[in-house]
Amino acid sequence: MGSSPNSKPKIVRGSAGYILEDVPHLTDYIPELPTYSNPLQDNPAYSVVKQYFVHIDDSVPQKIIANKDSPRGIHFRRAGPRQKVYFKSDEVQAAIVTCGGLCPGLNTVIRELVCGLYHMYGVKKVLGISGGYKGFYAHNTISLTPKTVNDIHKRGGTILGSSRGGHDTTKIVDSIQDRGINQVYIIGGDGTQRGAYRIFEEIRNRGLKVAVVGIPKTIDNDIPVIDKSFGFDTAVEEAQRAINAAHVEAESVENGIGVVKLMGRYSGFIAMYATLANRDVDCCLIPETPFFLEGPGGLFEYTERRLKENGHMVIVIAEGAGQELVTESIQSMHKQQDASGNKLLQDVGLWISHKLKDYFAKQKTMGITLKYIDPTYMIRAVPSNASDNVYCTLLAQSAVHGAMAGYTGFTSGLVHGRQAYIPFNRINEGQNTVVITDRMWARLLSSTNQPSFLIAKTAVEEKKKEEEEEDSFNL
Amino acid sequence: MGSSPNSKPKIVRGSAGYILEDVPHLTDYIPELPTYSNPLQDNPAYSVVKQYFVHIDDSVPQKIIANKDSPRGIHFRRAGPRQKVYFKSDEVQAAIVTCGGLCPGLNTVIRELVCGLYHMYGVKKVLGISGGYKGFYAHNTISLTPKTVNDIHKRGGTILGSSRGGHDTTKIVDSIQDRGINQVYIIGGDGTQRGAYRIFEEIRNRGLKVAVVGIPKTIDNDIPVIDKSFGFDTAVEEAQRAINAAHVEAESVENGIGVVKLMGRYSGFIAMYATLANRDVDCCLIPETPFFLEGPGGLFEYTERRLKENGHMVIVIAEGAGQELVTESIQSMHKQQDASGNKLLQDVGLWISHKLKDYFAKQKTMGITLKYIDPTYMIRAVPSNASDNVYCTLLAQSAVHGAMAGYTGFTSGLVHGRQAYIPFNRINEGQNTVVITDRMWARLLSSTNQPSFLIAKTAVEEKKKEEEEEDSFNL
Amino acid sequence: MGSSPNSKPKIVRGSAGYILEDVPHLTDYIPELPTYSNPLQDNPAYSVVKQYFVHIDDSVPQKIIANKDSPRGIHFRRAGPRQKVYFKSDEVQAAIVTCGGLCPGLNTVIRELVCGLYHMYGVKKVLGISGGYKGFYAHNTISLTPKTVNDIHKRGGTILGSSRGGHDTTKIVDSIQDRGINQVYIIGGDGTQRGAYRIFEEIRNRGLKVAVVGIPKTIDNDIPVIDKSFGFDTAVEEAQRAINAAHVEAESVENGIGVVKLMGRYSGFIAMYATLANRDVDCCLIPETPFFLEGPGGLFEYTERRLKENGHMVIVIAEGAGQELVTESIQSMHKQQDASGNKLLQDVGLWISHKLKDYFAKQKTMGITLKYIDPTYMIRAVPSNASDNVYCTLLAQSAVHGAMAGYTGFTSGLVHGRQAYIPFNRINEGQNTVVITDRMWARLLSSTNQPSFLIAKTAVEEKKKEEEEEDSFNL
Amino acid sequence: MGSSPNSKPKIVRGSAGYILEDVPHLTDYIPELPTYSNPLQDNPAYSVVKQYFVHIDDSVPQKIIANKDSPRGIHFRRAGPRQKVYFKSDEVQAAIVTCGGLCPGLNTVIRELVCGLYHMYGVKKVLGISGGYKGFYAHNTISLTPKTVNDIHKRGGTILGSSRGGHDTTKIVDSIQDRGINQVYIIGGDGTQRGAYRIFEEIRNRGLKVAVVGIPKTIDNDIPVIDKSFGFDTAVEEAQRAINAAHVEAESVENGIGVVKLMGRYSGFIAMYATLANRDVDCCLIPETPFFLEGPGGLFEYTERRLKENGHMVIVIAEGAGQELVTESIQSMHKQQDASGNKLLQDVGLWISHKLKDYFAKQKTMGITLKYIDPTYMIRAVPSNASDNVYCTLLAQSAVHGAMAGYTGFTSGLVHGRQAYIPFNRINEGQNTVVITDRMWARLLSSTNQPSFLIAKTAVEEKKKEEEEEDSFNL
Repeated sequence: MGSSPNSKPKIVRGSAGYILEDVPHLTDYIPELPTYSNPLQDNPAYSVVKQYFVHIDDSVPQKIIANKDSPRGIHFRRAGPRQKVYFKSDEVQAAIVTCGGLCPGLNTVIRELVCGLYHMYGVKKVLGISGGYKGFYAHNTISLTPKTVNDIHKRGGTILGSSRGGHDTTKIVDSIQDRGINQVYIIGGDGTQRGAYRIFEEIRNRGLKVAVVGIPKTIDNDIPVIDKSFGFDTAVEEAQRAINAAHVEAESVENGIGVVKLMGRYSGFIAMYATLANRDVDCCLIPETPFFLEGPGGLFEYTERRLKENGHMVIVIAEGAGQELVTESIQSMHKQQDASGNKLLQDVGLWISHKLKDYFAKQKTMGITLKYIDPTYMIRAVPSNASDNVYCTLLAQSAVHGAMAGYTGFTSGLVHGRQAYIPFNRINEGQNTVVITDRMWARLLSSTNQPSFLIAKTAVEEKKKEEEEEDSFNL
Repeated sequence: MGSSPNSKPKIVRGSAGYILEDVPHLTDYIPELPTYSNPLQDNPAYSVVKQYFVHIDDSVPQKIIANKDSPRGIHFRRAGPRQKVYFKSDEVQAAIVTCGGLCPGLNTVIRELVCGLYHMYGVKKVLGISGGYKGFYAHNTISLTPKTVNDIHKRGGTILGSSRGGHDTTKIVDSIQDRGINQVYIIGGDGTQRGAYRIFEEIRNRGLKVAVVGIPKTIDNDIPVIDKSFGFDTAVEEAQRAINAAHVEAESVENGIGVVKLMGRYSGFIAMYATLANRDVDCCLIPETPFFLEGPGGLFEYTERRLKENGHMVIVIAEGAGQELVTESIQSMHKQQDASGNKLLQDVGLWISHKLKDYFAKQKTMGITLKYIDPTYMIRAVPSNASDNVYCTLLAQSAVHGAMAGYTGFTSGLVHGRQAYIPFNRINEGQNTVVITDRMWARLLSSTNQPSFLIAKTAVEEKKKEEEEEDSFNL
Repeated sequence: MGSSPNSKPKIVRGSAGYILEDVPHLTDYIPELPTYSNPLQDNPAYSVVKQYFVHIDDSVPQKIIANKDSPRGIHFRRAGPRQKVYFKSDEVQAAIVTCGGLCPGLNTVIRELVCGLYHMYGVKKVLGISGGYKGFYAHNTISLTPKTVNDIHKRGGTILGSSRGGHDTTKIVDSIQDRGINQVYIIGGDGTQRGAYRIFEEIRNRGLKVAVVGIPKTIDNDIPVIDKSFGFDTAVEEAQRAINAAHVEAESVENGIGVVKLMGRYSGFIAMYATLANRDVDCCLIPETPFFLEGPGGLFEYTERRLKENGHMVIVIAEGAGQELVTESIQSMHKQQDASGNKLLQDVGLWISHKLKDYFAKQKTMGITLKYIDPTYMIRAVPSNASDNVYCTLLAQSAVHGAMAGYTGFTSGLVHGRQAYIPFNRINEGQNTVVITDRMWARLLSSTNQPSFLIAKTAVEEKKKEEEEEDSFNL
Repeated sequence: MGSSPNSKPKIVRGSAGYILEDVPHLTDYIPELPTYSNPLQDNPAYSVVKQYFVHIDDSVPQKIIANKDSPRGIHFRRAGPRQKVYFKSDEVQAAIVTCGGLCPGLNTVIRELVCGLYHMYGVKKVLGISGGYKGFYAHNTISLTPKTVNDIHKRGGTILGSSRGGHDTTKIVDSIQDRGINQVYIIGGDGTQRGAYRIFEEIRNRGLKVAVVGIPKTIDNDIPVIDKSFGFDTAVEEAQRAINAAHVEAESVENGIGVVKLMGRYSGFIAMYATLANRDVDCCLIPETPFFLEGPGGLFEYTERRLKENGHMVIVIAEGAGQELVTESIQSMHKQQDASGNKLLQDVGLWISHKLKDYFAKQKTMGITLKYIDPTYMIRAVPSNASDNVYCTLLAQSAVHGAMAGYTGFTSGLVHGRQAYIPFNRINEGQNTVVITDRMWARLLSSTNQPSFLIAKTAVEEKKKEEEEEDSFNL
């Protein structure tokens, strides 16, 4: 776990610096597979569509900002239906599994995989694996049809149930073989996707005709390459309620402070976008940017200043922010791991609330009233909004097109607004994070007026250094 | 009005087929303008940002799907702050106007123009022009500051007020000159943007140092080139309520039909996305796709079949759908024009509701209960959602960066997820429409199971033709 | 239909002017019915309840405002469980039917009847009659269990389906007899309740042991005696959206008028409460208060004045308001009746919108922009809110207790916050209406500042009369 | 603080056991006060109202359930305008203060006091006292007019700000005298209302012509006599979100438990009504009903059983539930008091979550996943819903009518749906609590199927006792 599998990437090169980072295909290791004409051709809904099939060479660039002389760079294979498919409709036995924490849109993805397989390709055998990875070998499955999934997109959560951990590559692939499953759709976070890669490798090693497709799920939006993860939009929308409540609470008392903890273990996207969308936030703290409490340029000083100016203050903090500070201040820190291997984070929202209360209690200059809101589970559990519903539909349909076309070991995702197939290794190579030297973060700083702790710190350190130097100079 | 002004586009060419469709610049017609260093450099919020300024040659491609040998194609200038600006902060006198119908996000754009000018560039003089174009010469203005616009993004509508028509190029430019306005931000639909172009041309003809910036507003999302227009996301979200209500009404009676009319004079984007997001819709009718009522493959036949199968039916119809049918059936049709020049459309929702009631009343095979919902004003008037709030912020800030950098006659818009400056002529060249021979529409057909009226019609006509041929052959 | 059945009311008298208007009981016409001890006694959930059973003589007063010498007046029998019941649990075959238009809470009432019968009394046989009254003899029924109704309260509409009309007393009672149904729960409006009374009478005439219970449903809240009808609270809440939208539309243009039509055929409760809750309404027109358009004190004058003062205006109009005006102005008025016998009302919202547009078009003093919103179906179709959910639960449980205790021909309803059993004739005796000489309406007038058309009219008439008199005097 | 002031209640007796618990009047201690005719008589909005003025002897009964021979019992004075008032409009200097925690509707009450005074009685001088009681002597006031309060009912919180404590009777009454205030409206919880009583007594002792009116505010609904407190409806509605989220989280994993803590220090009304409205709750724990964790009939056993049966479980717990258990298990318990004198309660939600996790961790029979949600601040801070808006309007107008009519030392509240004036001592005499031997609680038990811990405990104890007896018997 954690080590990225080391299969050789498939690279295609073209003119003007064009590079295609391709995804694996069943024929990479099973050379003589028969093909069939795509049944979509006979589907009345698609019959008016001209050029329905994606051109075999279409690709989507990873970077699109260009100038007149820049090279063309890395591209990904464009998603969509192909003229030839590698599975006959009645031959397909698909399986869907959801792993990890809740995220708005899980049920929509399930629904659209089932309906996409059924309505587009006439696939009638779809198994839902219950309770995450371990459902494969715990013999816990349900049959999924367009009828059983008809309304599920209007409910939060996942009808399949989910769990953390439980990944056992051998047992899972045994179960896939035993059940005759030949298309596996795995919806889950980064740990889950690394697991999906191992399943793909094991299947390839065994030479099985089984397409393995990953659909990355993370409410935190911390997946590399893709535009955004499904459920993120809904989460940012729902976070507004908590921020609004914190603002009302803070405004209604003298020196009121409202603290809202939002999701984001390693990246602050939800906190950043929720702050930008709301405009009542005075300080947004995220994992990517270090901050400090005491001294000039620190949070305490800023809070005190803001309360004097404005009478109240709203702080949004991502769950992964300031972890090194929390760790420092908790002496009896034991390295804890939850079942999926994520560091069990201390609750930074409670920690910072206590720190602020303590500070002002000691200062005695001003009495504060602090209200702490943790809306995490109320955000995760809502149904996906309209925008995420459409996005989930495209993700699921792209996944189905890819598997039918014989691609495997890939992820379906949006790249600059276009559906693409991305090799597992690119998705698993690390978290996507807010680039705090980028303009989006500058926009946020400009909107909150909060100090850039980075500069303050550097400034303080440099001042100290200067002072030391001066001191030494004085010698 | 309607004729696209014929200034020569600025075209730059590069390697591998690279084309840049550039936007005008004040120095195009005022050669010796002094420049100043961008005050953002001294803004603490931006001080950690590396490479904050957009590279002078950065551009965004119009088409990004590529294969290894495809030429690079058309690009637009990337939006963002430039190292040099052409206005001193205290020299700027900006003006903002909103024209046309309501759209979620208008207030957010106003807010962010004011705050962007103030916080990023230290511009303190911003005028709001009240009541649309005619406010310029009706001496109806209010002063806008960050304080006066602080909360307006949480309200629907526009605090400036709006109106249709009232465009008088000479009077407007006279007023701009008289008031010493040198940055004009014009938020409005296609008519408004054509007006903005004429203002730009008049200003150029007079040789004035005035930047004219258009921010395209259309809830219908029918603007070419850009990814989507602001407020569209909110509109699709809000439309769900109406569709859900229509579904409940239809389900609760025998042979219930729910008809929902959604916005979309010339393009069916709201109807299409709202349908895709919802899944309870059985038929979606948009301006881009012709349909017909009677005979095999027509709407009556489909409705009858659907009621027999399912007991109820939901129809979503865009306001501009089936206009030729409505026109035909209204004998006393007079060509009506509203003040902005848009054809006054007959209410297609009422029309189709009556047609369906009539049909089933005559048929006497089944009694139906039809409920018609027109949520238009309830959708237009809501505040923008979180996603649109962030989008409006980026649009407004990009507009401000462009004007400060001396660009003029341009529109700020999102292209493949990147902010770009687009010349007016590209925005005004026609409506963006749903391409019904594209896969998005096929997706919709597949999700609703509605007939493709196009094929049905062709099939019927061909059958008739065949029969005639056979007839003639039999002679 | 329409004529109230003339069975003799059951009246009990007591001290100090106490009167009890009692409800019928099965033993009124089947003297020798066996009784059983109430199975609730063995229900663990109820075992801690002291005095669980309602005292046999408990009653609720119709009027509670009293002074030290006032007589006690009319009372209704208190609802709740009785020590003795007249049905054995396994003997009961219950039936539930919903009739008429949609109303939030229908599904909650159905759910709680089923769950109340099952969990409180161990009744397992509950039939849902589909599609309204005609479902009885159209053999269209479904079996209802706690499991099948578990989630239905979170959906709008009625899972049983509904229809207007279809009442055929003989066929219905035949069907009740044939199916062995002995408890009938009839949820519907005033027409439906009159039908329920006829069913009760036919059943009594046939001497059947069948309890007939009415649960009055009207979103308009126009039922006499009871505090409010279920769904009313939800409707008032949901109406806020439409009024807010009308306000935003009106505010965003010069001389903007927003018109919102709300439900209320014969009574203006929804319009009045929605207006009082909102505060952005300038004029509220209801069926109970006549109004006029032209001349001093009329709507046109007020509208003109309000636009001059305030720049915009919001009008809320109940669907049944100003019917005599609409009728007058539509020459070709044919007396239309819908299937349930309700006058098919002309759309007063469209009518008044056209009248206002016409007036200002003719006046030429000010150009107006009018937006008309009809949210009716979007309000009716929402799920009930928390408050209505609790209310529906109490209504349903009271109904079940009453039927089990052998009462029949009664309605369950809230009187001054207490559940009571009310005889059909009191519910059917006429609409409850807003008393415009009461303080609630005065409150509204005070909040909108609208003219009291009543006085204006009288004043005008009196002035005319005075002038005539003066004229005659001058002779 | 805490001791109820012991002024003698004003009691009036009538026929048939009629008792009126009257409220004080300025003339009780200032005999020769002049009266004026009520200016409402000249208000056009009220001119159509017949019998507008409340009959001087009108009263509302405390208990309304009656039988034919029951005595009439206690009544309260009916609220509403009187023919004679004791203040001239331009003589009035009103003051409004809000104290304690947030509650939906505070701003609506403020708005309607200001608008009621202004529009009904022509009172133009209204002071807002900022930041709670201490604002009286901290010279922190703002002037309130219909214009400044126009939109505040659409925002949560209180525009006046609030605080706990700060009550100093002498300083407050000095300030009232110094400022010439003669009507004081005090909105706050039970501590605040006890403070209001002391202010009333001090004012009476000083013989001042100052009306003191209390408007009881408690989101918990724990005020005696009145039907419900304002904001309660909104709170129950908003609590649905949290319960729904807990349900989704619990359902989506194996053995998922969702725990929601709701407001309710001494009474479980919010928990009970939210549970009854929702239906997905398996266990509701409130302060009024003791419960226990271990052993037969305890929470652990029930939880285990429920998880086995159903796979998941939702627990709603009021913040004041199980305090004796929390106290026991926290050894280092120090008696803490917050500024208003409320016991600082340990967080029972966190406590029970840890207990459940510990139990199942030790048992090792089943792994559980528990999610804890505390929506308190997200509920308190929302704007009031339509129903509460209307209620707040009536409360505020009744308060104004009462003060103008010379009543003092009273509370305005709804009794059986009628506005009444209630003497302070009745409101302050203790908390209103859920009566767990009443049918409402039985309804809840029946809907959740949770054990009645009371019986279980008694049963266990009795069984133990029996066993002991048997043991002794066996000797």
